[in-house]
Amino acid sequence: MSDALVQLKERLAKITDLERVGRLLNWDHQTMMPPAGGNHRAEHLATLRRISHELLIDDETGRLLDELRPLEETLDADSDDGALLRLARRDYEKAVRVPTELRAEMTRAAAHARPIWVKARAESSFEQFLPALERNVELRHEYVACFDGVDEPYDILLDDFEPQTTTAEVRETFDELKPELMSLIAELRDEDGDVSFLQGTFPIDRQEKLAKDVVSLFGFRPDTWRLDPTEHPFASGAGVDDIRITTHYDPTSMKSLFSTMHEYGHGLYSHQQPRHLERLPTGSPCSLGIHESQSRLWENLVGRSAPFWRLFYPRVQEAFPDQLRAVELDDFLAGINRVRPSLIRIKADEVTYGMHIILRFELEQDIINRRVELRDLPQIWNERMSEYLGVEVRNDAQGVLQDTHWASGLMGYFATYLLGTVMSVQIWQKVLEDVPTLEEEIERGEFASLRDWLGEHVHAHGRKFSPQETLRRATGTTIDPKPYLAYLRTKYGAGVAA
Amino acid sequence: MSDALVQLKERLAKITDLERVGRLLNWDHQTMMPPAGGNHRAEHLATLRRISHELLIDDETGRLLDELRPLEETLDADSDDGALLRLARRDYEKAVRVPTELRAEMTRAAAHARPIWVKARAESSFEQFLPALERNVELRHEYVACFDGVDEPYDILLDDFEPQTTTAEVRETFDELKPELMSLIAELRDEDGDVSFLQGTFPIDRQEKLAKDVVSLFGFRPDTWRLDPTEHPFASGAGVDDIRITTHYDPTSMKSLFSTMHEYGHGLYSHQQPRHLERLPTGSPCSLGIHESQSRLWENLVGRSAPFWRLFYPRVQEAFPDQLRAVELDDFLAGINRVRPSLIRIKADEVTYGMHIILRFELEQDIINRRVELRDLPQIWNERMSEYLGVEVRNDAQGVLQDTHWASGLMGYFATYLLGTVMSVQIWQKVLEDVPTLEEEIERGEFASLRDWLGEHVHAHGRKFSPQETLRRATGTTIDPKPYLAYLRTKYGAGVAA
Repeated sequence: MSDALVQLKERLAKITDLERVGRLLNWDHQTMMPPAGGNHRAEHLATLRRISHELLIDDETGRLLDELRPLEETLDADSDDGALLRLARRDYEKAVRVPTELRAEMTRAAAHARPIWVKARAESSFEQFLPALERNVELRHEYVACFDGVDEPYDILLDDFEPQTTTAEVRETFDELKPELMSLIAELRDEDGDVSFLQGTFPIDRQEKLAKDVVSLFGFRPDTWRLDPTEHPFASGAGVDDIRITTHYDPTSMKSLFSTMHEYGHGLYSHQQPRHLERLPTGSPCSLGIHESQSRLWENLVGRSAPFWRLFYPRVQEAFPDQLRAVELDDFLAGINRVRPSLIRIKADEVTYGMHIILRFELEQDIINRRVELRDLPQIWNERMSEYLGVEVRNDAQGVLQDTHWASGLMGYFATYLLGTVMSVQIWQKVLEDVPTLEEEIERGEFASLRDWLGEHVHAHGRKFSPQETLRRATGTTIDPKPYLAYLRTKYGAGVAA
Repeated sequence: MSDALVQLKERLAKITDLERVGRLLNWDHQTMMPPAGGNHRAEHLATLRRISHELLIDDETGRLLDELRPLEETLDADSDDGALLRLARRDYEKAVRVPTELRAEMTRAAAHARPIWVKARAESSFEQFLPALERNVELRHEYVACFDGVDEPYDILLDDFEPQTTTAEVRETFDELKPELMSLIAELRDEDGDVSFLQGTFPIDRQEKLAKDVVSLFGFRPDTWRLDPTEHPFASGAGVDDIRITTHYDPTSMKSLFSTMHEYGHGLYSHQQPRHLERLPTGSPCSLGIHESQSRLWENLVGRSAPFWRLFYPRVQEAFPDQLRAVELDDFLAGINRVRPSLIRIKADEVTYGMHIILRFELEQDIINRRVELRDLPQIWNERMSEYLGVEVRNDAQGVLQDTHWASGLMGYFATYLLGTVMSVQIWQKVLEDVPTLEEEIERGEFASLRDWLGEHVHAHGRKFSPQETLRRATGTTIDPKPYLAYLRTKYGAGVAA
């Protein structure tokens, strides 16, 4: 290996390590840290971010990349080193445009905004959150201004979460989804069915046990994974052998089970990253959209399916006999799959979920294009919720303040949830083609074929290719909303039966 | 403030942040990390260590220090900036001698050795641990070889834990202690007294509750502290408002209470560091010896004293009625203060503890001066335990493998335990002079005067001065074993009574 390549890899390994350490600090922040530790944490994260940014944009990185250009031209674009050089060049060329101080300030401002948002949401007061939001949005404007040669400013934000994907491309996908989803919602919104058994008393210790059961069944290994409770579920970790997922236990519902399955999908993706690329940027998940395709696949295509519940329902019935003793499997399945427009994105069903995302995707573009005043966001939010989902927002906590993303500096992120959801169905159909016995295996509690298929066809690519190229290699096609819409029509048109 | 001073402080803040992040990763490693995460963790710690070392030894640090020399000469040596420049220069001049690769390799080798030691100790097999120990000792030889102009090689290792303190100085203190301790042990070793009530059944949930009770009473604030269980108790944290202490619960004894009080002392020292020096090297604890003076003070001078137990014994009796219902306070006090030579350092009483340390201090000098073969360590260890404490070592797990230090690359560390113990008595006597009502306050459960005195006279100095200068500012004198020996003679000669 050339000296320059060795040196570049050492530099990229350091950057990767710092990024992983930052992820662990974020996990700790949300699971373990004493509350007053937040100020230290903001400084520490800003320092890690600043150092890794300086390492990336250092003249020496540019010099090494220049020196390696002739080598890169001789390498197969699919090879590990070819992909690494292509990716490193792209990361470098993006990063070098952003002043280190701005990058650190974005991290710091986000860390400071989070506790303000927590309090504002608890008190349902958008007014309290507005100054912190203004500061974070202002920093996004400064960030966007570092770039030129893009079709629209929002492309810059989107690219940080879904690389090499433009706002126009996402808009095309979402514009195809929007009328179909709205018509499906109108069709299904008044469906009957008793789902009162899903609300009631679900003791947390039993939810914890079930959460552990379901991820063990899927393939959670305690020597490499953790599962902890948090206010908001997420997946994180410090490497392929240190995966940390969280879930939220609500004593009045069993929704923790679905969020646990969701985070398992994220965790498995991180766990099955290519080991020989560990500590290199190519050995990380490809994009948030691809990440979400994995979590939605386990949550919905496995976790809300009849084969899975034929296996798992008896355990859940046994855990919550007062709630479920008298509920037949078919009624339970209909209940967990009921379509009902609601206020909160993370509680939305498979059909209405997309409209929550489209609302945010459109609103963020309005913000970045300065077409709306930030102080008007609650009103705009509420109007669009009424238009898209037919629900009335009663307070900001259940409206514009419900999600942590803007308080965490994450603008450009939301679209990936729906992109991932769409892609999850494309991937699922391909798994079913390749593993025709999959549903029978699931019903027997066997998940190895599914894990292995995803490992081989999706996870093993790491970040070597763009999201769409990764999807193409896994399924043969790029993103297409039709299979997702067909899946919804089949599942919800026909009803779900065991 | 001069530009150069601003720049130097920014650089030192980064280094301090990285050190704090490293402490958090170590805490996580021992409390939360899935076992297989150890390999990532070793790489991540080595990367943090390498980056902070590179920042410190960078030519730019030297240039800033040169530029600031005239300023330094005008500053009061006691001032914050005067102390900072003196300390930064000392840290720089030490660090610049050590190649970055060696520094990172020392961190990595230690992280790799730890799980090997865990297994070797579990199987009581020194043979298994020997290669990892050899590697770590070899790296210490390489480290020592980076320096010249010292009286003896061991000075270099000692200085990393107890700065500006020579082996000869420690030897002088220990040589004064050694015959006195050995004679005291000989005198007390056959004392009678029933302590069977200290062995038995102590349900862990009640121990947990008592541990929380005692540190709450001392002044543990849940918004800034955590207390978790670990195999080996320790104190760590990420800053003054993020303090993490751990303890070990053994269902057959109540020793967790004493280790909790010990770690509280460490935690309080970190918590009361000067806030205006946060993120600067001067805003950190001074030395491990001073650190230990704080932990031993809370564990022994508070936690094994009659006034404290007049307050706290009823709670402990209530928690463990089967064990303690029939045990009078005087008998309990005599029991927790009984002198009995034993195999394990961390279980030793106040009188025998010192000999455990002196043994290790002497042995480490023998290792570094190549006067012993590493493979002979078990035999030498066992011979000296017999000579110093009159106990026979039955296996390596209870002998040479008992402590984690050598598996963590910590050579030069042990002496600080006894230095701290000696200093704790000097400090305690000074507190009693300044706060004559202290014992009555303790008996009433009031610890604010003690916390505040320690905060003002010890903690507030941070790392501005050498350990001995810090002690002199707190007590008026430097280290002196006589008060400690007098304390032991008074306490154990007279017996302890309520």
